[in-house]
Amino acid sequence: MTDKKSVDGPVYVETMAIYGVGLIGGSLAIRLKQHNAVGKIIGVGRSRENLETALKIGAIDEIQSDPLEAAKQADVIVLATPVNTIAGLLGTIRPAIDSSKIITDVGSVKSGIVASAKTELGDMFSRFVPGHPIAGKEKSGIVAADGDLYENHKVILTPTSETDSQACELIYRLWALTGATVRIMEVEDHDRVLSVTSHLPHILAYVMMDFLSTSKDRENCYEMAAGGFYDFTRTASSDPEMWRDISIMNGPRLLEHIKEYQRQLSVVSRMIEEGDHQAIEDLFGAAKKARSRVTEKRKKVH
Amino acid sequence: MTDKKSVDGPVYVETMAIYGVGLIGGSLAIRLKQHNAVGKIIGVGRSRENLETALKIGAIDEIQSDPLEAAKQADVIVLATPVNTIAGLLGTIRPAIDSSKIITDVGSVKSGIVASAKTELGDMFSRFVPGHPIAGKEKSGIVAADGDLYENHKVILTPTSETDSQACELIYRLWALTGATVRIMEVEDHDRVLSVTSHLPHILAYVMMDFLSTSKDRENCYEMAAGGFYDFTRTASSDPEMWRDISIMNGPRLLEHIKEYQRQLSVVSRMIEEGDHQAIEDLFGAAKKARSRVTEKRKKVH
Repeated sequence: MTDKKSVDGPVYVETMAIYGVGLIGGSLAIRLKQHNAVGKIIGVGRSRENLETALKIGAIDEIQSDPLEAAKQADVIVLATPVNTIAGLLGTIRPAIDSSKIITDVGSVKSGIVASAKTELGDMFSRFVPGHPIAGKEKSGIVAADGDLYENHKVILTPTSETDSQACELIYRLWALTGATVRIMEVEDHDRVLSVTSHLPHILAYVMMDFLSTSKDRENCYEMAAGGFYDFTRTASSDPEMWRDISIMNGPRLLEHIKEYQRQLSVVSRMIEEGDHQAIEDLFGAAKKARSRVTEKRKKVH
Repeated sequence: MTDKKSVDGPVYVETMAIYGVGLIGGSLAIRLKQHNAVGKIIGVGRSRENLETALKIGAIDEIQSDPLEAAKQADVIVLATPVNTIAGLLGTIRPAIDSSKIITDVGSVKSGIVASAKTELGDMFSRFVPGHPIAGKEKSGIVAADGDLYENHKVILTPTSETDSQACELIYRLWALTGATVRIMEVEDHDRVLSVTSHLPHILAYVMMDFLSTSKDRENCYEMAAGGFYDFTRTASSDPEMWRDISIMNGPRLLEHIKEYQRQLSVVSRMIEEGDHQAIEDLFGAAKKARSRVTEKRKKVH
């Protein structure tokens, strides 16, 4: 992983089309507006009501119901729709794409999207800058959007060797305006790392809630669940449809990590079974130490 | 699980001995002092420095280095030391125990402690009221103690059929003064429920940190770990020695739960492998719904 050097000077986009003006797309729109970094933002989306709200609060300037028409008008196209809709959208807007346009996305899994982009965009693949802002909330939609959402968060871009470097730089600079730290990573590295830090924990929390809710002790469990349990299972409040798609799309990495996690859990199980005090204490101690590094990293940015 | 009916009128203990004046024992001491519910609190513990601090801030009135002597003087004995020290302490203080005294503890696993109490106390077993305040912090010692620690928390008592009911009632009323909701449960129910809501999540979080820290991607993982991961692994910051002992002591329940959790994790793994959209969405959806019940319960008390 390397950092792109900071680039000075103002960044300006005449016309931007944002597909999916929800928490992620909407928060970006609001922030870019605050910086006067965009002349006009066209909103595209399935929910007319959501788009009307976005228009009313000034996150977007225009609603366009035809995805292709929006792409024709836009200089920069931001695909902020669910991961499994990106391939289809790229196919739809393909006729509008030429070398004057830049496309980016916000999907949590990059390898599948990059492969689709290559297929769908063909010789215009170089115009696609794969991106992933690591931010979220339990709430969604434009009503949850917030210009400060990305402050102190990370945004990862995963350009390939074919990605146009000026296109990448523009997307980099737009994200930098949000207060996020922008990082460049390889596609495969991104998907492996996010599988560990985000996708696996989501699965484990969902399974924990599933485990509790199917237990014969569930009523007592709900009653006795304290702060530790509450924090541990927070990610199980995430949108099931979104996480279904992420899980399947990052399946190859995730399945490998689940397997390895199971193996390490079995090791601890055996230690408990054998009453191996020293081994358990060593493992918990090392885990606590590792956790303190996560805390330090957070203290630095918050 | 049944609720004991509330009991009115003041509660007063002439002399209380607290063994282990740390976060748990110290917070109880401070609160009981605030309520003038105790005449004198004798502090017993391994760390002289910790006891001196407790004395200085008025959490205790006296330091006693001899555990037996403290028990002789006390009307109520609170064992707030690590779970694996309770059996030894009960043996040590046994000569001081008669039917005028009441002993309670704060251990997170009840079956082993109740069995030890039966062995160690013999015909004075009826004087022992097993207890477990479900509260904690990442910090420990008297310096972390706080009279409000138990506000809106649960305290579970697990009296057996042999436990003296008046002794149980007194301990119940003392805990009620802390602002906690006191619940009566069967020993076995307590250990099964706490295994699900507390011990298993601790193990899973420790294993998650262990998994991350032994990954070849660990540096990138530390960098990319966001809020969800931070919350998910909070319990991995808990004291390794304490959780080693809890894990071993509640081993029979915990091992069964780890096994069942692994089985359910394998089911999800297979769904992802098969790309079974519907099954995954249903499972995540049910988990999210279950999680919302935990949130509701918390909203009620906070």
